[in-house]
Amino acid sequence: MYDDESGSAFFRSHQELLEAARAAIRSRQSWSGYEGRVPSQDDHGASARFAAQLGSPFELVDHPGVMTLQTDEVSPYTREALGISYPRATVDELVAAARSAQARWSQVGLEARAGLCLEMLERVFRRIRESALYAMHTTGQGLGMSVAGSGTNALDRGLEALALAYDQLARVPNEARWARHYGTVEVRLTKSYRTVSRGPAAVVACASFPAWNVYPAVFANVMTGNPVIIKPHPSSVLQMAFAVKLFRSVLTEVGLDANLVTLCTDDLAAPVTQDLVTHPGVRIVDFTGSAVFGSWIEQNVRQAIVFTETSGANPVVLHSVTDADAPIKAIAGAVSLFSAQMCAAPQNIYVPAGGIRTDDGVLPVAEFCERLVSALQQVSTVPRRAAAVLGAVQCDRTLTELATLADAVRGRGTVLLESAPYAHPEFEQARTAGPLVALVNLDDRDLYEVERFGPIVFVIVSPDAETALARAAGDAASLGAITSFVYATDEPFIARAEDAFAEAGAALSINVTGPMPASFSAAFSDYHVTGLNPAGTATLSDDSFITGRYAVVQSRRPDTTPTSRPTSTEPALEAQETHA
Amino acid sequence: MYDDESGSAFFRSHQELLEAARAAIRSRQSWSGYEGRVPSQDDHGASARFAAQLGSPFELVDHPGVMTLQTDEVSPYTREALGISYPRATVDELVAAARSAQARWSQVGLEARAGLCLEMLERVFRRIRESALYAMHTTGQGLGMSVAGSGTNALDRGLEALALAYDQLARVPNEARWARHYGTVEVRLTKSYRTVSRGPAAVVACASFPAWNVYPAVFANVMTGNPVIIKPHPSSVLQMAFAVKLFRSVLTEVGLDANLVTLCTDDLAAPVTQDLVTHPGVRIVDFTGSAVFGSWIEQNVRQAIVFTETSGANPVVLHSVTDADAPIKAIAGAVSLFSAQMCAAPQNIYVPAGGIRTDDGVLPVAEFCERLVSALQQVSTVPRRAAAVLGAVQCDRTLTELATLADAVRGRGTVLLESAPYAHPEFEQARTAGPLVALVNLDDRDLYEVERFGPIVFVIVSPDAETALARAAGDAASLGAITSFVYATDEPFIARAEDAFAEAGAALSINVTGPMPASFSAAFSDYHVTGLNPAGTATLSDDSFITGRYAVVQSRRPDTTPTSRPTSTEPALEAQETHA
Repeated sequence: MYDDESGSAFFRSHQELLEAARAAIRSRQSWSGYEGRVPSQDDHGASARFAAQLGSPFELVDHPGVMTLQTDEVSPYTREALGISYPRATVDELVAAARSAQARWSQVGLEARAGLCLEMLERVFRRIRESALYAMHTTGQGLGMSVAGSGTNALDRGLEALALAYDQLARVPNEARWARHYGTVEVRLTKSYRTVSRGPAAVVACASFPAWNVYPAVFANVMTGNPVIIKPHPSSVLQMAFAVKLFRSVLTEVGLDANLVTLCTDDLAAPVTQDLVTHPGVRIVDFTGSAVFGSWIEQNVRQAIVFTETSGANPVVLHSVTDADAPIKAIAGAVSLFSAQMCAAPQNIYVPAGGIRTDDGVLPVAEFCERLVSALQQVSTVPRRAAAVLGAVQCDRTLTELATLADAVRGRGTVLLESAPYAHPEFEQARTAGPLVALVNLDDRDLYEVERFGPIVFVIVSPDAETALARAAGDAASLGAITSFVYATDEPFIARAEDAFAEAGAALSINVTGPMPASFSAAFSDYHVTGLNPAGTATLSDDSFITGRYAVVQSRRPDTTPTSRPTSTEPALEAQETHA
Repeated sequence: MYDDESGSAFFRSHQELLEAARAAIRSRQSWSGYEGRVPSQDDHGASARFAAQLGSPFELVDHPGVMTLQTDEVSPYTREALGISYPRATVDELVAAARSAQARWSQVGLEARAGLCLEMLERVFRRIRESALYAMHTTGQGLGMSVAGSGTNALDRGLEALALAYDQLARVPNEARWARHYGTVEVRLTKSYRTVSRGPAAVVACASFPAWNVYPAVFANVMTGNPVIIKPHPSSVLQMAFAVKLFRSVLTEVGLDANLVTLCTDDLAAPVTQDLVTHPGVRIVDFTGSAVFGSWIEQNVRQAIVFTETSGANPVVLHSVTDADAPIKAIAGAVSLFSAQMCAAPQNIYVPAGGIRTDDGVLPVAEFCERLVSALQQVSTVPRRAAAVLGAVQCDRTLTELATLADAVRGRGTVLLESAPYAHPEFEQARTAGPLVALVNLDDRDLYEVERFGPIVFVIVSPDAETALARAAGDAASLGAITSFVYATDEPFIARAEDAFAEAGAALSINVTGPMPASFSAAFSDYHVTGLNPAGTATLSDDSFITGRYAVVQSRRPDTTPTSRPTSTEPALEAQETHA
């Protein structure tokens, strides 16, 4: 039998981490709960465990469903089926299990809840290399990114949501005493407030980067009392199954119902996501994926509140630079990172037709293009570098779409660089693709007005930098953008860009160069997605990511304690009460 | 020309009030910003000003539109047309004016914004009697309720939302310094965060109690940077027009665009609310009104975020009492108050077939009914008391519906008390109605399963108290309820009721008797509407009432200040940073 002391013990052991996280979400200064910490002993033997998992059933003790081979899961590196079976349950079964777990979980106190959630994150951190191998061989990320982006950064995003939820819930008092005079009679009441969860929640993950959005959604939900059904993409289940297993281990250990967190699996041939997110028992949906599906969810899910992160055609505007080298390298780096299979990758590079002002005179568009292509090739044609930065391509469809798009560009503009595979130094069969660079005009909007998933950038020639800015910000507002990038030495232009992208609701990086990827979004510091443009509604993470997942429900009754006056540390309150 | 010093001056003069409000939303103890304060000199001559307004155009300086007679506005007391013209503008014009005001307003600093909003509330407070007369002769409320419920309480709800918005915005820092090592290179960035408004907002008011929901919606919106278009019911414009005028006076005085707050008027014959709330330029909708229209908005408004308060069939469950007198009087009082034209009024009284346990033995259902009818009649048949408590009925339709419903009840159950008008001691023509009491069975669910607007209660005979509780809470969850009431001396039963109504998302009053109306909802202390059941989505007020109305958008750039390390008051942060 569970009692809150088990959770509170975890709370005490992780309290320092939580307090530091709570301070960081307010200061927004650089902080990480996981980066730089010494890896755990638990993670030794990760490679062996990964190897042993291949071709074997993935055990989730007491999980609903029947073990079923996940045929869509194929490593982008080895191109071999992972051959892993997972429990497959119907949506009805999963919702029923979730509702059943919710009842007990909702009685767990706030500190205990936080303690258990912190321990869940800790257990994933302790197995970060093993988790990274699972991420790598499903998403196609390089091992470095799998450890950082899908590891520490994703855990930080989870911790950030956990800390925000804790803060928000802690602001609601458990009870209050209330008194007011009606004529000569004083009515005294005691009021108690409880936070009631909305749940169950369906958390739908994308194929290429599931952890980064799933962890925050899980902890926003679970902290606010909601059971979670994690629905990974059928081609990218393993890392999420592993997280589910570790999360459940904490629950089981303390005697709680492990079905607070479950896994929903399906096949590409018979997808269940639409059934899941429209199930009458599902009351919260967190979705990460394509704009088309995200929009379908926003339009069709009526029984649940919805949080989405979809995609944007993220713009770059080039106005003026001191020296073009660093910006070009920064853009090339951000485009190359994981072959641009990331929501924050730049796609549309707006350049003024007259060229880019530099300290050494104007850089003509043609020369900019040449140097951009060259910078991209310095990554994509050097296999060891490409393997580290580009990684592999998650699915075949990205390559097909790239080829189709290249044909479309050839009809109108110029293909400056063809997308070409590179030979992965370790995995001969790896599905790889270097970037496609297309030179187009403003009029070719149909080509660049949506997110083209994968390694493609458009260099879009604009009459001048002001037009470039207006178009880039206008597109961000109407088509959606998560990030935007401006390179300019002119402060008034920078100020106009800040206003324009703020209004469009896209985070802006100004003159960012150097070793940090320009598209990097830091938990605790960078707000990710605003909800002000079509790229999604879920901000990682501000108060809006937590509210709505629960409500405060009160009960009140006569206060029968004798002669007690409400005690208050606020003299102002006491003074006012005599007026009431 | 406006500068923030004008707003900041108001901030300083109201700062103490804001700080006390901020403390109250956390402590949830009894506090009011307006009750008990000495009325202002400004309010002298309220009656004369009201008289002068009748039959005259209502001037709103620089407001878009053409003065148009509001033919639907008829006093429920005198039954005479008010004969007031208001500016009537098209939805397009109002949205354009709002967007135009938004640009400048969004640059107003947080303190100045709060100062101007506090002053707006203060100006309404200073004219509280005049405002109350306008409320009375449009809504039908008695003068006492017009001063309290539509006056001080509504202002408190506005101040509560203002304080919550202030708190939430104040938690977002303006900027942060960020640093992280990538290999041997330290990347340093300065980040700036701005809160960007979503707006414009359409605030749709109900006819019978507009101020109580409009003020919080206005200040939640305006504080977060959004212009507001207030859309009163065509039969109940005057009080809102007055508020708009006073709000605008503050803006004009400091040189800001008064169209930050505008009034949208229409006719019952040609309503524009659907056009307004689905206008592509409207990004936020706050709606108070019928469940049918609220549901239409929730289903059809796709371009805006939506906050609704509709209605519920609020239940009472009678289990056991010490002495039945006080509870019966409390129920009768809550039903009588403003002829139950309030969202928190009880409607469905569940009684066990075997009677209600009391200290003096069991009170049979028949006797309970008799005593309830008697208690109701003690108010409704004494004209001076009825005038003070019941007030008048806002519209003819309520009476028609009451008559139809009485016929339906006669076919199935028993009409225990016919709704009858009372003779208003002051206004001979007043549209009045005492309560209708219907005795029905659990099976007559079609009669009581929706909110029946106006003075009607159903006494619903249930096999036993447990069934009564299960049905009452089940209905609250599936049909919607804002409040619920339980009378019981049995603590385990009370605990089950608390769980059941918490799960249903309805606030619960337990054994509440005495001079405070049992349905009274106190700003700063009582949470009103949870969003967990169909009675609406907008909680007055928690963080969810503020989030979504704005987003944080950031920009970041290299930190070029020499040698500066991020300063922090958090040693834990500094320690962690060295790991990063």
